[in-house]
Amino acid sequence: MSHDPKFAVIGGGSWATAIAKMLCVNLTEIAWYMRNESAIAHIQELKHNPNYLSSVEFDTKKLKLTSNINEAVAYADYIIFAIPSAFLSGELENLTESLDGKIIFSAIKGIVPETSLIVGEHFHDKYDIPYENIGVITGPCHAEEVAMERLSYLTIACGDADKATIVADNLSGNYIKAKISDDIIGTEYAAMLKNIYAIAAGMAHGLGYGDNFQALLMSNAIREMKKFIRKVHKMKRNINDSAYLGDLLVTGYSVFSRNRMFGNMIGKGYTVKSAMMEMSMVAEGYYATNSAYKLNENLGAKTPIINAVYSILYEGKEPKKVFKKLTEKLN
Amino acid sequence: MSHDPKFAVIGGGSWATAIAKMLCVNLTEIAWYMRNESAIAHIQELKHNPNYLSSVEFDTKKLKLTSNINEAVAYADYIIFAIPSAFLSGELENLTESLDGKIIFSAIKGIVPETSLIVGEHFHDKYDIPYENIGVITGPCHAEEVAMERLSYLTIACGDADKATIVADNLSGNYIKAKISDDIIGTEYAAMLKNIYAIAAGMAHGLGYGDNFQALLMSNAIREMKKFIRKVHKMKRNINDSAYLGDLLVTGYSVFSRNRMFGNMIGKGYTVKSAMMEMSMVAEGYYATNSAYKLNENLGAKTPIINAVYSILYEGKEPKKVFKKLTEKLN
Repeated sequence: MSHDPKFAVIGGGSWATAIAKMLCVNLTEIAWYMRNESAIAHIQELKHNPNYLSSVEFDTKKLKLTSNINEAVAYADYIIFAIPSAFLSGELENLTESLDGKIIFSAIKGIVPETSLIVGEHFHDKYDIPYENIGVITGPCHAEEVAMERLSYLTIACGDADKATIVADNLSGNYIKAKISDDIIGTEYAAMLKNIYAIAAGMAHGLGYGDNFQALLMSNAIREMKKFIRKVHKMKRNINDSAYLGDLLVTGYSVFSRNRMFGNMIGKGYTVKSAMMEMSMVAEGYYATNSAYKLNENLGAKTPIINAVYSILYEGKEPKKVFKKLTEKLN
Repeated sequence: MSHDPKFAVIGGGSWATAIAKMLCVNLTEIAWYMRNESAIAHIQELKHNPNYLSSVEFDTKKLKLTSNINEAVAYADYIIFAIPSAFLSGELENLTESLDGKIIFSAIKGIVPETSLIVGEHFHDKYDIPYENIGVITGPCHAEEVAMERLSYLTIACGDADKATIVADNLSGNYIKAKISDDIIGTEYAAMLKNIYAIAAGMAHGLGYGDNFQALLMSNAIREMKKFIRKVHKMKRNINDSAYLGDLLVTGYSVFSRNRMFGNMIGKGYTVKSAMMEMSMVAEGYYATNSAYKLNENLGAKTPIINAVYSILYEGKEPKKVFKKLTEKLN
């Protein structure tokens, strides 16, 4: 592209809002798509997203807000998807603009339920996007702390290091440090798997296990994650880098994590259905559990934690009994 | 030994009390030494340690309580030291009984300030205890959760696997799972280093850094710990095993950790001296920082976190500035 790269953010939730905030530090204009027209009107008039990170004030002159995904896609070279994975397929059905030549970054951290693919694979398989035009934005990073401008580190993964660098540069700022990685598959799987482990952590808490067990669980989780990801895509990576271990910890130890909260309710005795209704949204890790479990039937990694969460969420097994058995398998 | 092995616990604090509780599940008698004679009288009369884990009730028929360390040492084959490292040398000065043939386990998790040695090395160098008679008891394990009988996992390290197994078997129970390891040096250094990282975590919190940074810090800490320990004693170990990563996490994420609390006060602006006075005790990590830093002058591992904590605690550098620089070195 001969011009400065143009960015679009797809999504109106807290992580999309945080990314829009980061980009506005470095860019004079971004496109920002969200479904909710009244939220757009609110932002245009009052400079704040009414529903998410509502403390963040936007310079609305920089925002090309739209409720038409095609306008955002047509505008941008770099398109950052930050919507729940459960809504991705539906949103993409509205697409009439071509994605040819577009560079797609996923900030979704989940699995596409309809295809059981991580987001990068979904775009590659269903939209013929070459892998050098696909990337991942990952943490450890709670959107809420971006709103508060607390120092946070991102990892920007892309097969093409130049594109990773462009995204990293445009997200970086006083309180954001972004580094690049070439492990697009591993970082995205890590971001997906950590939600399952956060559910497990929540379940353990709900069942009355304490901090000692939580630390043991996380130490087992990172070893399990390493085995799983190595089976998916073997390459040289340090699983203790912040995009893997850091991301696991920020979610697994967060009382604000929706996945951990969901697990906590199940541990306390809610049914899956009632926990979902109570939360009025679905935790990403719920779908991830099913997909990871099914995928692992072929991979054959040893994943006692994923298996335990699966048997509780999808086979109706009793959390207390499942965790009692799980504790025998951990060390 | 032809008889069943006899155990003594040295120390009257919370971790010593937790270990005494665990042993009493499996043994008909243990020796338990503590300095404080009024605490001994209290336990004998009322079955509870008045000062630490006071909810734990002891079957006093099982306890040979003594304020004379020689009685405890003479009684036992296995001697478990669980006193602050700062008091170890002083206690050992009272020793007239020989340690020949005794099996010494350290549950101390610190460095002996007078010699800058970890406890195993101290016993080896100063008391000629062969390494096959030296072991380490490590977590992740808060004593408080042992009192509550919450499931906890221990690692028992000893060069002699049979001795490790004997200790593991006598600590195990309904809520304690103990596994064995042959990495006596690595587990003890990990237990010591994690206190420095807990101080760093506390400092970061006190300075206003959030959960995103905390996760990043822990992910850097485990990589730093791996490098440090590899320089001290190279062997095949998985740094993500619970004795290393698990122990780091349970301390670094605990709001009850004295080391984290100490760091938090420093981060909030207390001087080292006033933080120590306020806590009315010294955090293990304070000594560990000095010893690890000095030791690393020879080892040459890259340890930006230890260096940062050292420069704040021992060189009077300003925490805010030191951490600002540190954030540039982490990733």
